[in-house]
Amino acid sequence: MKIYDTEGFPNPARVRIALAEKGATDQVQFVPVDVMGGEHRTEAFKAKNPDAVVPCLELADGTHISQCNAITEYIDNHFEGPSLTGETPKQRAQISMMNLRAENGLLNAVGTYFHHATPGLGPDLETYQCAEWGNKQKQVAGQTMAYLDEVLADNEYLAGSEFSVADITAFAGLAFADFAKVDIPETLSNLTAWRAKVSARPSIAG
Amino acid sequence: MKIYDTEGFPNPARVRIALAEKGATDQVQFVPVDVMGGEHRTEAFKAKNPDAVVPCLELADGTHISQCNAITEYIDNHFEGPSLTGETPKQRAQISMMNLRAENGLLNAVGTYFHHATPGLGPDLETYQCAEWGNKQKQVAGQTMAYLDEVLADNEYLAGSEFSVADITAFAGLAFADFAKVDIPETLSNLTAWRAKVSARPSIAG
Ligand SMILES: N[C@@H](CCC(=O)N[C@@H](CS)C(=O)NCC(=O)O)C(=O)O
Ligand SMILES: N[C@@H](CCC(=O)N[C@@H](CS)C(=O)NCC(=O)O)C(=O)O
Repeated sequence: MKIYDTEGFPNPARVRIALAEKGATDQVQFVPVDVMGGEHRTEAFKAKNPDAVVPCLELADGTHISQCNAITEYIDNHFEGPSLTGETPKQRAQISMMNLRAENGLLNAVGTYFHHATPGLGPDLETYQCAEWGNKQKQVAGQTMAYLDEVLADNEYLAGSEFSVADITAFAGLAFADFAKVDIPETLSNLTAWRAKVSARPSIAG
Repeated sequence: MKIYDTEGFPNPARVRIALAEKGATDQVQFVPVDVMGGEHRTEAFKAKNPDAVVPCLELADGTHISQCNAITEYIDNHFEGPSLTGETPKQRAQISMMNLRAENGLLNAVGTYFHHATPGLGPDLETYQCAEWGNKQKQVAGQTMAYLDEVLADNEYLAGSEFSVADITAFAGLAFADFAKVDIPETLSNLTAWRAKVSARPSIAG
């Protein structure tokens, strides 16, 4: 199994954390993609992932899987260890819902702000920008942080009492927020405490 | 089990088709939400679904699940019948990936065009619009249709040989495209043939 990605980027981080949670990091070969050099937009890479983004998983039979939600679900189903996507239909639905809220409302909102309302990855890669929409998404990210803080007032993790892919996605979203200089209000004390707890997990602290 | 939704709207349609595929439509009570009257933005509705959109599933124990991907996964796991989200880890990942491509690249792209670059649901509901972004998303929808057409050159359904949630999402995306007057090029003959085939399914043709 191979993963084409770029170390340190927020979406690749989601897959690397999921692998570490399953104790499976050493069962995967990482193939670096030079995103800053535009390698992900070459025809050779788009033949693997037409979305032209990292990460992309390659199975032993040559099948390519992209989109972090699909990749982390594959990792969760393929490897042993505590479930990251839930066991019962209800748990699975709650995790899926919270993961999508964290993805759309936080990680992707911060990403859209970064790529559209800041210099982003620089002029060679940011060939189309819509600053107004980017700034609107920064507001969405702030609203989602406040919402997640409320959820964490009553729950140990975002989808209940167990750590899940929803936590991984939100954690990557906050890391991206720091990088993009999107403020994470200190008044959101549940979110801050949850972040400290998640940071201390062996899959992240190392 | 209850579903709060608005008949005829594209995201509610995804859940209704999934239920019909599982033969479970009569096991759910539908509760109409007056989206045109703004009912989905009331505090009472947002207590069920803070995303302030339809559909929203209510389980017998009072738990609320929103986001179509989470709701359709629940329906698929809870009811008998052929799987809509895949059996093996590989099938599940391929369906999840194609479903996300259809959702982000087609259904949501058309939705963003509709809500931002047309009068959408009217001035009372469209309180913020960004026409430039909306028009950009119309282009994205066109590119995604061309991509799906290529996929369908080699596959009977979007994620391979079996009908899945990816087909449901793309089908709802094309219905929304018609409604929003986004052109579906007739030159995309694989997409057109697939659409005719899917339309004839009992879950859709009735
Ligand atoms: N929805 C995609 C997002 C992937 C994504 O945006 N990856 C970023 C790196 S974090 C990327 O490749 N960006 C390249 C670019 O913006 O050109 C997923 O879940 O994998
Ligand atoms: N990502 C959501 C999207 C739901 C959505 O956008 N629903 C539309 C109806 S198709 C809605 O409620 N719109 C209300 C509004 O735009 O104010 C899902 O998967 O359920």
